[in-house]
Amino acid sequence: MLGKNTLKFIKSLQQKKFRKLERSFFVEGSKNVTELLHSDYLSTHLIYTDKYYLENRALVDNFRGETYLVTQKVLESMGAFKTNDSALAVAKIKEEVPFSLEQDEWIIALDDVRDPGNLGTIIRIADWYGIKKLMLSLETADFYNPKVLQASMGSFTRVEIWYTDLLEYFNDTPLDIFGAFLNGKNIYQTVFPKSGILVMGNESSGISKELEAHVHQKITIPRFGNAESLNVGVATAIFCDNIKRSTY
Amino acid sequence: MLGKNTLKFIKSLQQKKFRKLERSFFVEGSKNVTELLHSDYLSTHLIYTDKYYLENRALVDNFRGETYLVTQKVLESMGAFKTNDSALAVAKIKEEVPFSLEQDEWIIALDDVRDPGNLGTIIRIADWYGIKKLMLSLETADFYNPKVLQASMGSFTRVEIWYTDLLEYFNDTPLDIFGAFLNGKNIYQTVFPKSGILVMGNESSGISKELEAHVHQKITIPRFGNAESLNVGVATAIFCDNIKRSTY
Repeated sequence: MLGKNTLKFIKSLQQKKFRKLERSFFVEGSKNVTELLHSDYLSTHLIYTDKYYLENRALVDNFRGETYLVTQKVLESMGAFKTNDSALAVAKIKEEVPFSLEQDEWIIALDDVRDPGNLGTIIRIADWYGIKKLMLSLETADFYNPKVLQASMGSFTRVEIWYTDLLEYFNDTPLDIFGAFLNGKNIYQTVFPKSGILVMGNESSGISKELEAHVHQKITIPRFGNAESLNVGVATAIFCDNIKRSTY
Repeated sequence: MLGKNTLKFIKSLQQKKFRKLERSFFVEGSKNVTELLHSDYLSTHLIYTDKYYLENRALVDNFRGETYLVTQKVLESMGAFKTNDSALAVAKIKEEVPFSLEQDEWIIALDDVRDPGNLGTIIRIADWYGIKKLMLSLETADFYNPKVLQASMGSFTRVEIWYTDLLEYFNDTPLDIFGAFLNGKNIYQTVFPKSGILVMGNESSGISKELEAHVHQKITIPRFGNAESLNVGVATAIFCDNIKRSTY
């Protein structure tokens, strides 16, 4: 039976400081839990309903950590979602591995993207476009925030991340750095190399002045109408699409 | 002074049935209110804080409807946002004008896009790409929902919409109909005409079987990695970008 201490432990993981302390996080909902259990993350707790068990019997039976069958009501009391009729799983945060660059590889760097939904969306987009590495400024939203993981729709299991001082990283990298600006080169007229870094800036202030000085090529999405800007997730997708079709 | 009845009237507009009854809606936040006041919508009430007045004095002074200076706390008590330190404005819902087609025009049709945030994002994207007309199935989210207007970031003032039976519309239109599917033609290898209809489907079930039969060309965004799908707003942006660059 699910005890008070376990319940308290799981609830505490909604907060970044406890995730850091416990080196643990949780995901909710059928899609994300199932993706987690199929990934190389070490899962320690699986809390599930009858409904989830019926659809994922083998996955539950073979789970090596603690398992608890609960009602939907109990499940919803411990997570961050309003509704959850399937499952929640706790896993260990991965140790950061040393960064290494493969051939013909694009990397996305985020300069203070603070909205968890935006970070999650960008992770999903990176996964769609086969971009596996994200460099995140220290002020970017926390990767293990439940809202980030949720918006990533399971793609969080297929990207590697590094929280780092982007200025230092840009000083070191051999890659060409392309930055998203409103006054850069038209992406329809840009030939992108097979590898590079795409830098996306903060939701309201864009890429910082300090980083701007390190950008080799400012790039811009042509505008045909009157919207002032695009959401950072949407813009990331359009840049990735143009980069990938350039060498398709 | 802001009376109880006005407060009650504004609050009621959070619900679709009262928006329909009163033929009125509201928007919140500096950006959306300012865009509304600059648009051809007929605004009837402007509720604002000191802060908004300092930054938009002329706009407030020239307002022809009812104006109320309130505290942030009062402002937040009437709207749908958690925080709002600037303004809220009420306007009349526009009468639907007869649909007419211009030359070289693309139209976006949404088949049951139910999430208000997604609809708002798509409106903003349409505005960016100069697409001015949206055909919305009857089950699509309500255009005047505060969450839709918010996510549109003011772009709601620059698009025209029609709620309609898409099947009937597709039967009538002279335009080529392009539908978003996971097994369609690669958009990198598609030459798009100067006018057409882009159909996007429901968040979980996609384009309905009935409408699918009317789609002339199924189209697909190439996938390079492992994400199962893209968010409907993100996908709309990538389709619009490929359509517009095709005739750039």
